[in-house]
Amino acid sequence: MPQNIMNYATVDLDAEKNALLIIDQTKLPNEVEILALTELEDIWNAIYTLQVRGAPAIGVAAAIGVYVVANAIDAYDFGEFYILFKESKDYLASSRPTAVNLFWALDRMERVALENQSKPVAEIKNLLRDEAIKIREEDIRVCKSIGEYGLSLIRDGDGILTHCNAGQLATAKYGTALAPVHLGRERGLNFKVYTDETRPLLQGARLSAFELVSDGIDTTLICDNMASQVMKNGWVQAVFVGCDRVAANGDACNKIGTSGVAILAKYYNIPFYVCAPTSTIDMNIKKGSDIPIEERSGREITDLWYEKRMAPDGVKVYNPAFDVTDNALITAIITEYGIIRAPYIESIDKIFKR
Amino acid sequence: MPQNIMNYATVDLDAEKNALLIIDQTKLPNEVEILALTELEDIWNAIYTLQVRGAPAIGVAAAIGVYVVANAIDAYDFGEFYILFKESKDYLASSRPTAVNLFWALDRMERVALENQSKPVAEIKNLLRDEAIKIREEDIRVCKSIGEYGLSLIRDGDGILTHCNAGQLATAKYGTALAPVHLGRERGLNFKVYTDETRPLLQGARLSAFELVSDGIDTTLICDNMASQVMKNGWVQAVFVGCDRVAANGDACNKIGTSGVAILAKYYNIPFYVCAPTSTIDMNIKKGSDIPIEERSGREITDLWYEKRMAPDGVKVYNPAFDVTDNALITAIITEYGIIRAPYIESIDKIFKR
Repeated sequence: MPQNIMNYATVDLDAEKNALLIIDQTKLPNEVEILALTELEDIWNAIYTLQVRGAPAIGVAAAIGVYVVANAIDAYDFGEFYILFKESKDYLASSRPTAVNLFWALDRMERVALENQSKPVAEIKNLLRDEAIKIREEDIRVCKSIGEYGLSLIRDGDGILTHCNAGQLATAKYGTALAPVHLGRERGLNFKVYTDETRPLLQGARLSAFELVSDGIDTTLICDNMASQVMKNGWVQAVFVGCDRVAANGDACNKIGTSGVAILAKYYNIPFYVCAPTSTIDMNIKKGSDIPIEERSGREITDLWYEKRMAPDGVKVYNPAFDVTDNALITAIITEYGIIRAPYIESIDKIFKR
Repeated sequence: MPQNIMNYATVDLDAEKNALLIIDQTKLPNEVEILALTELEDIWNAIYTLQVRGAPAIGVAAAIGVYVVANAIDAYDFGEFYILFKESKDYLASSRPTAVNLFWALDRMERVALENQSKPVAEIKNLLRDEAIKIREEDIRVCKSIGEYGLSLIRDGDGILTHCNAGQLATAKYGTALAPVHLGRERGLNFKVYTDETRPLLQGARLSAFELVSDGIDTTLICDNMASQVMKNGWVQAVFVGCDRVAANGDACNKIGTSGVAILAKYYNIPFYVCAPTSTIDMNIKKGSDIPIEERSGREITDLWYEKRMAPDGVKVYNPAFDVTDNALITAIITEYGIIRAPYIESIDKIFKR
């Protein structure tokens, strides 16, 4: 391990070189490589191939990315500039078609351009840079706030179980589910974290374990099917997970396996917390069963890292990327504006009307 | 797939060549190789390296194995014969120090030798062969009986979820947990089986999926963390698992992850059946928490098949090989003598006093 990964930015702007900086997450945990991207094609590819992943991190990368590309546009009047800007924006939006944060960030950048179209192109470029930086800083603030609220729910020395990676590597800093642990570490608190490896893509083993160990946190890797035993041993005082989308009734869509962890937590009487920036709460979706579940290639399961076949020919494979955790299994949802509890239809509505 | 694996014997005696026949399970699912073993060292190694595995299959392999070795002993009086027999028996017993069936089968073979010590060595060898064949035939009868009782609990077309491999490959024929499905298949019934891949060693993907597909059964492979979603989809009408040891109160020790599946089944109101030959019920163990849990090397989790590192250096690993499912989560235990239900202390006691 070269140095604490917490000192790197998952996603950032190199202001001098006007480049998008990211840690290439496909190389983790074996190699920490920082990429400085300036070309549209490379930025699109970074999102598409998961070199940068995690809903908040993708949003920030898209904002910085579209600024970097816009800044290089050689145009003097807005009409000419906007045609090229829009082309780049639409192209970037096609990199992960289901990532809500991606569209949200890109739309916000476009709005800045449109609202300032009477200004000189050079100034629009500056405003786009400011907006991208602002989106990144907001993300850090949101994560830090979720971390603070999360910290209020646990005590020094507690065992925390997490699934997948909703850590610093999924955001600009701190993460959502792992924010309490990282923030606690800054303050000298010591948590013991159990991270599910998270089959089939092993984000828990490759990413969460990596950033936690790098930050000096006591981290134990387990297979997904060991969570029950770890809970039975009495080692887990709270479960923290991230989420990709929360319905208006509090049902939460997250990485496949999350609902199983929630059911185990309920059985063992362990609080189960979903960490959700309000940007992931989708008030247009009434309940979890309305959220479509993406299915991915069976080869992710049958072939170990596409290198060795581990299942017989002719077997069917079911490979949903997400599942939905029923609101009744969620002890609380932690947002940047506070901790909300059941009944969620009322408490979620209230947080949007705060 | 060359031909139906159900037509091969997982473990058998080649009576002409006096050899122990096994399918080399370490080569599955990519290659079906039948080994004919005659040397003590090779038989020990086959059990030690999991070329043959599954508690009932190990017992049968040890019985046939010790006969094969004993048959080759060049001795005319019993004293001389017994010294060499005992040496081989003790050596084979050291191949899997925690496998109860191994000791049980070897002790039974030794008893035959001791009880017939007044007979000529050539006749003792014949009696040992008969005993080994009997142990194997009994295993098949036990599995078939469990299959019959299991079949009475499900209906044609049902979805069945299983964990790890308690199939034909773990026994001489049919298996325990998979016996109802294989027997049903012989009778033209069609079940849909969902098999957890069963990390870290992937017995579900490599072995259960293999034998089920080979037998023409509709088989879907999932990651362990997808069982919740499959149950939520309404695809599972019953869960069948095997077990390594059942306590006198019905708590059942089985492959790691089994207790998690049981908790999910309870949550989704799906019956959870443990298939247990009475030989696996240990009346000397009062409750599950008295069963010691073997922990294995962390490399099974951190390194994909020892070929590629998938976790950071410095991470701790917890790798229990088994867990215990509380009796309250078990809908019924299926033995060769019938289906037993809670309260298990009474019903298990009754089955031994039948």
